[in-house]
Amino acid sequence: MLKLFLQTHCSRAATSLTSVPAGPTCVASRGPLCVCVGLGPRSYLGIINVGAINFFCNYEESRGNYLVDVDGNRMLDIYTQISSIPIGYNHPALLKLMSNPNNLSTLVNRPALGILPPENFPDKLTESLLSMSPSGMTRVQTMACGSCSNENAFKAMFIWYRNKERGHNTPSEEDLSSCMVNQAPGCPDLSILSFMGAFHGRTMGCLATTHSKAIHKLDVPSFDWPIAPFPRLQYPLEEFSRENAQEEARCLEEVEDLIVKWRQKGKPVAGIVIEPIQAEGGDNHASPDFFKSLRNIARKHGCAFHVDEVQTGGGATGKMWAHEHWGMDDPADIVSFSKKLLTGGYYHRDELQADKPYRIFNTWMGDPSKNLILAEVLNVIRRENLLEEVTRSGKALLNGLYDLQAQYPGMLSRARGQGTFCAIDICDDATRNSILLKARDKGVLLGGCGDRSIRFRPSLVFKEYHVHIFLNIFNEVLAQHK
Amino acid sequence: MLKLFLQTHCSRAATSLTSVPAGPTCVASRGPLCVCVGLGPRSYLGIINVGAINFFCNYEESRGNYLVDVDGNRMLDIYTQISSIPIGYNHPALLKLMSNPNNLSTLVNRPALGILPPENFPDKLTESLLSMSPSGMTRVQTMACGSCSNENAFKAMFIWYRNKERGHNTPSEEDLSSCMVNQAPGCPDLSILSFMGAFHGRTMGCLATTHSKAIHKLDVPSFDWPIAPFPRLQYPLEEFSRENAQEEARCLEEVEDLIVKWRQKGKPVAGIVIEPIQAEGGDNHASPDFFKSLRNIARKHGCAFHVDEVQTGGGATGKMWAHEHWGMDDPADIVSFSKKLLTGGYYHRDELQADKPYRIFNTWMGDPSKNLILAEVLNVIRRENLLEEVTRSGKALLNGLYDLQAQYPGMLSRARGQGTFCAIDICDDATRNSILLKARDKGVLLGGCGDRSIRFRPSLVFKEYHVHIFLNIFNEVLAQHK
Repeated sequence: MLKLFLQTHCSRAATSLTSVPAGPTCVASRGPLCVCVGLGPRSYLGIINVGAINFFCNYEESRGNYLVDVDGNRMLDIYTQISSIPIGYNHPALLKLMSNPNNLSTLVNRPALGILPPENFPDKLTESLLSMSPSGMTRVQTMACGSCSNENAFKAMFIWYRNKERGHNTPSEEDLSSCMVNQAPGCPDLSILSFMGAFHGRTMGCLATTHSKAIHKLDVPSFDWPIAPFPRLQYPLEEFSRENAQEEARCLEEVEDLIVKWRQKGKPVAGIVIEPIQAEGGDNHASPDFFKSLRNIARKHGCAFHVDEVQTGGGATGKMWAHEHWGMDDPADIVSFSKKLLTGGYYHRDELQADKPYRIFNTWMGDPSKNLILAEVLNVIRRENLLEEVTRSGKALLNGLYDLQAQYPGMLSRARGQGTFCAIDICDDATRNSILLKARDKGVLLGGCGDRSIRFRPSLVFKEYHVHIFLNIFNEVLAQHK
Repeated sequence: MLKLFLQTHCSRAATSLTSVPAGPTCVASRGPLCVCVGLGPRSYLGIINVGAINFFCNYEESRGNYLVDVDGNRMLDIYTQISSIPIGYNHPALLKLMSNPNNLSTLVNRPALGILPPENFPDKLTESLLSMSPSGMTRVQTMACGSCSNENAFKAMFIWYRNKERGHNTPSEEDLSSCMVNQAPGCPDLSILSFMGAFHGRTMGCLATTHSKAIHKLDVPSFDWPIAPFPRLQYPLEEFSRENAQEEARCLEEVEDLIVKWRQKGKPVAGIVIEPIQAEGGDNHASPDFFKSLRNIARKHGCAFHVDEVQTGGGATGKMWAHEHWGMDDPADIVSFSKKLLTGGYYHRDELQADKPYRIFNTWMGDPSKNLILAEVLNVIRRENLLEEVTRSGKALLNGLYDLQAQYPGMLSRARGQGTFCAIDICDDATRNSILLKARDKGVLLGGCGDRSIRFRPSLVFKEYHVHIFLNIFNEVLAQHK
């Protein structure tokens, strides 16, 4: 029966009829995705939530930049599991690592890292996460996923803020008793300022700072926290520097107004959270000056500054962290990560360390087997100079997108990117979704973001010749649509 | 430097001075844990949050019920990484599984399960989670950890409740626009009813239903959700059935009052969440009748009923799920799990399925490598009849605790348990913590819970002879304290 399931729903013909494009959909969406939504999650044996499934994959046969489906179709993967595969599929260095019997124990004995870490955990942390610490940060807290990373980063900011308000670390009796029943002052009315279009995850704290698509938030209770506009820039950035600077100034002014307003409301802003490039929300960029000013505003108003690099971190912008492009010694108080880093977590400045044990804590607090793989991924990145490769491929990709945009002005606009972390807008949502499906039928897997953008998220082993393979196919798809 | 760190802080002598007992501490705690709190998280190279670390472990050398520390000390482990090791350390069946080259691909290619699952994922689900589905549930949603499981279970209940309120699945324009800015009606004022003493996790949605210790909640904003009293029973249960029934009736009455009150407040209760045995909060039991009545109250008031089996699930009570002891065909609408199941997730009845794709979603949505291990763990449980072993060992353990309680009436009370999921109260917090440390120095690793309880959380391979080894050592420790 399972075989039948796979055969029925995973052949190329079937997937074309029943699948959604490789990007989040929206409650009100039209076009090919409705076919799948219409089929509903009750099909497929009714065992799992499968409404979003594109197709089933043969990961054994997948290699490097190529993902293979269960029918043996081989696709150039420029979406890489929502940007979470750092060095391609089945990299020989990782296969070798996982075949090493010395690593078996790490795979079968998952510790409670916060209380009983393995002997080699400090070494593995030093080889992996600590070898790439953002400037100004020497501390890291691992977590199991991106949402948990952001949730705990928020908690660290709340704890820091309240201790600052108290002037000391000792809670009152009233703090201790009121927090047990969810009430102030123990559970204070503090807020996190986020940006319209942001995506920081889907657990309830994160979700209160996520504002990219209604489908993520609908029907879930939330917090009355301030939401600032994210700059809506014109591209290419260098051609619109005056207009863009004005737009950024407008947004920064709004941020300060909101901080003041929420303080007056009795819900002070403990922290500001922002992505270096709003990814899920449509690949929205802002200038280094914008982030520098925002960092200063945070400091001026006593708010912690949290840079969410869950999607941007790990090398795709041509630097390990997107915030490195800002050129700051002290870019943030907290930097969270996940996806390409294979483990979730966050770096933080010393003062954001919770004052007592068990305040930031859970059973697993990460997974040492992922740190093991990450350490080897970093070896490969260094040995193969992958950040330079990304910069080179990224240039070729963006130039190619500029060319196509000139060639199809009615269909394409706003090509933009940093490294291979690129995107382009399509004239409308329906055309975008149709292009995504056609590209897949021609062997290229892409993802959408925002209302009508396509985002490019290849792994770090995406070379210039892969860019040209992609551009040729993309050109063919666009030509058919013209 | 790291070597020095390990040598300084991990020898038996050093750990006795600097470590905390293997259970969560509390803001106001006294006794040996203050030594570690006093050392503060700034020691240990200042790279990670280490305030809660007991000691570093040598997992390679650990076997079955025995955990080995970096100095080679071998301890009978009755805490098992906060109850998360199902069949002991380095089980040969798991080592064999992880050595199988056919599984390499699963280890190095982590998919975005919600969109591009591996070909064998339905098979692995069928072999693992679906082979142990709770009664009335054929659907499962995997997640990466316990908190994410509960967060998403809550979201599923909110979505279900709102669609029921609407009478259909189509949100209004106002729903869609208001949710983007965290406001009603799109982000409605719904609530989850939880119980005092409960622990459901530490991310912000979960944390609003957690009420076990102040240290978990202090300084984190929360929701105004109703909190009912959990029955405070007298043990042994069979000796106090009349008193306990009265206490349970009182709590159930309060539950109904709160549901009505919160509806009147404009914050209707969408779901009730409860643990079959409150674990972190002090191993508090309630009768099958209590849970049956609670299930009926939920149904009567149109609330979903969510049973959190993150700590109780996986066999330690002598059944795969603790709620099986209630003997109900339809025990819950949602059952969440993690820890011993190695992957997080939740089962749910059909109607709790989110109506559209991407409503319950994140990048990884679990980890197929954990399902692989779980499938083999279940094979071992069946092959070795481990649930029967647990029932047998659990009886020996509880009888032993009854004997010790009779022997040390001033020090021990309220011995209780189901299977090996047992606990006993110590006269006060300081004595409890001292006993935990002394037991460890004699080679037995235990954990605390509640204000002054010790909880027993061995793995499923804990045999009757391990019980006797433990009881002898425990008796020695108690005799010294008398």
